[in-house]
Amino acid sequence: MKIIGIADTTFARYDMGSAEIDELEHTVTGFRIIIYTVPGVKDLPVACKKLIEEQKCDLVMALGMPGPKDKDKLCAHEASTGLIRVQLMTNTHIIEVFVHEDEADDDKTLAFLADKRAREHAINVYDLLFHPESLTRRAGTGLRQGFEDAGPVKQK
Amino acid sequence: MKIIGIADTTFARYDMGSAEIDELEHTVTGFRIIIYTVPGVKDLPVACKKLIEEQKCDLVMALGMPGPKDKDKLCAHEASTGLIRVQLMTNTHIIEVFVHEDEADDDKTLAFLADKRAREHAINVYDLLFHPESLTRRAGTGLRQGFEDAGPVKQK
Amino acid sequence: MKIIGIADTTFARYDMGSAEIDELEHTVTGFRIIIYTVPGVKDLPVACKKLIEEQKCDLVMALGMPGPKDKDKLCAHEASTGLIRVQLMTNTHIIEVFVHEDEADDDKTLAFLADKRAREHAINVYDLLFHPESLTRRAGTGLRQGFEDAGPVKQK
Amino acid sequence: MKIIGIADTTFARYDMGSAEIDELEHTVTGFRIIIYTVPGVKDLPVACKKLIEEQKCDLVMALGMPGPKDKDKLCAHEASTGLIRVQLMTNTHIIEVFVHEDEADDDKTLAFLADKRAREHAINVYDLLFHPESLTRRAGTGLRQGFEDAGPVKQK
Amino acid sequence: MKIIGIADTTFARYDMGSAEIDELEHTVTGFRIIIYTVPGVKDLPVACKKLIEEQKCDLVMALGMPGPKDKDKLCAHEASTGLIRVQLMTNTHIIEVFVHEDEADDDKTLAFLADKRAREHAINVYDLLFHPESLTRRAGTGLRQGFEDAGPVKQK
Repeated sequence: MKIIGIADTTFARYDMGSAEIDELEHTVTGFRIIIYTVPGVKDLPVACKKLIEEQKCDLVMALGMPGPKDKDKLCAHEASTGLIRVQLMTNTHIIEVFVHEDEADDDKTLAFLADKRAREHAINVYDLLFHPESLTRRAGTGLRQGFEDAGPVKQK
Repeated sequence: MKIIGIADTTFARYDMGSAEIDELEHTVTGFRIIIYTVPGVKDLPVACKKLIEEQKCDLVMALGMPGPKDKDKLCAHEASTGLIRVQLMTNTHIIEVFVHEDEADDDKTLAFLADKRAREHAINVYDLLFHPESLTRRAGTGLRQGFEDAGPVKQK
Repeated sequence: MKIIGIADTTFARYDMGSAEIDELEHTVTGFRIIIYTVPGVKDLPVACKKLIEEQKCDLVMALGMPGPKDKDKLCAHEASTGLIRVQLMTNTHIIEVFVHEDEADDDKTLAFLADKRAREHAINVYDLLFHPESLTRRAGTGLRQGFEDAGPVKQK
Repeated sequence: MKIIGIADTTFARYDMGSAEIDELEHTVTGFRIIIYTVPGVKDLPVACKKLIEEQKCDLVMALGMPGPKDKDKLCAHEASTGLIRVQLMTNTHIIEVFVHEDEADDDKTLAFLADKRAREHAINVYDLLFHPESLTRRAGTGLRQGFEDAGPVKQK
Repeated sequence: MKIIGIADTTFARYDMGSAEIDELEHTVTGFRIIIYTVPGVKDLPVACKKLIEEQKCDLVMALGMPGPKDKDKLCAHEASTGLIRVQLMTNTHIIEVFVHEDEADDDKTLAFLADKRAREHAINVYDLLFHPESLTRRAGTGLRQGFEDAGPVKQK
């Protein structure tokens, strides 16, 4: 039985955690989920570390929605740097699922994108935990989450 | 009995610490507060670490008011990076309450914003320490501190 | 028998890992390869750390293709910072082979560049593992991978 | 008897260390000073760490004068990040006293500013070591070092 | 007998290592040198750490020549951050001698600058290892390496 942690925020404007859980439950079996909600993205690194060390999670998803201002972009950068540090302190994957508010032109598209990106990352979680060789088969194929895949490039 | 640390600065132009304490005392019981004042935001990370490790704080609030210049923004970035590092070294939350001087157009608004943001974060402190499930109920709802909430977005 | 790790991504649009392996197998003997594929460049640091610590790799190649947006550039920066941190935590070299999507004007050139850079780094891997004195003979000679060598400069 | 470390550079264009020592000797008793001079600001973090760990300093002042170019600003950022890291590794305060060359319009003003900032930080050093409650009394009052204090803001 | 490590790159367009060694041999006695060459500046941090920990170097010089593009500047920043981290992990000085390609207008000047900066840092290495008090005598005097000294500023 694998334990998947989900760390999310009250700052985000879409409940990506519920989308993620819904998708995982329809895709995977043999796991249980622990949720940890914090105010904003800068609170995510320590939440993820506690999920891994105190709750024994095998993998954590860090869900956040950074705002559109320069200040917000810097917050996201600080959070991402922290999330990588946690992974190196624990030898455990944290899948960062950030949707920047300015990636979408209107609220409806933002909700759609957040939902889709959260759901598409469920496959990565599943593969990292149970079928890592499946990821290797798709190496270098230009996959994207939320937007259309970019696809591979060829020399001729 | 929980111990809440408050680290603040002489550089800040508003006494957010007193606002924070006033709000906490009107909202929460079962805790005591330890204050640690330093010159500027770059001195906050080690102050928070000492509050956690030497004063056994269960959670710390880091209050600061970065100036408007590029140099000040970089100081804030360095401080924030340090605050995240402290959290990862101690598995303890630090709630960063920074109000940038240029978030407000005049001194009066700046004071109002600093006071309000400090007070609204008291709820996050309370929930993280005593009622974490309450944060999860508000996940993805677009909450803000100091300014009006952004609110959630919907797909339809 | 040396063990070479290759960490790559499904985000990349060219399978640099296969090019790398093909080149290594034509150049070097006395090694075996372990592949670890992750979604994107920010997942590479922990993958490399696991290859070194759990799979006992003597050297790891981190292959990635950051996108052209500001957000993508920042991801690459965060990944690179993490890759250096892993090296310092393990005293093991990680050769970062990143090809930025905007280094090439069209898809075909991008594929060509990714293939060539991956292959040319195979020599560095070989030398670091088996013939470090060969690198010292080429110190300060302006070598490049993927593009033409810049060559040395002289005082007269 | 407290030990105060002073780390300074040959790159700086004003001997802030002597100003600092002069001011400390006129203000404080019950301490002794150890000086450690390095080439530039990027050499300060390890100098400070050695002052704390090898020379048993209770607090260190890091004195530097970053140049006006983008490259110099980045050096200052790297140094500051390192100084915060040292503090977190040692639970010891380092008071960073940096004067950027472009903070002053001419050489004479630069010398004046460097001298004044170094001297005004002596008070912070004194208070952190001997009278921390004095800093708390001045929390949120908009103090500055070198330039005129900004002063507090009020809601009405 | 002190051991001085020299870490350099095949990316650099001038053999600063040989200049450094030539200068050290004409200036200092009582030391021996170990060279470690890597592909680029981002490989320098781990090379320096290995020189210190595995080869017992008392001080290391990190020689690099970052390219002129934004991407190159970022590489230099990541390398510098790593070099500071190594120093803090080992309590050992690393003298970073980076010459940015765009510091010189033509190849000949670039070679001249790289040679001169490498040689002038030999004095810093000598003083840090054998005569630290000599650096303190020159504190705050505006020394530069490669370009003309800026000199001290005075209040009157």
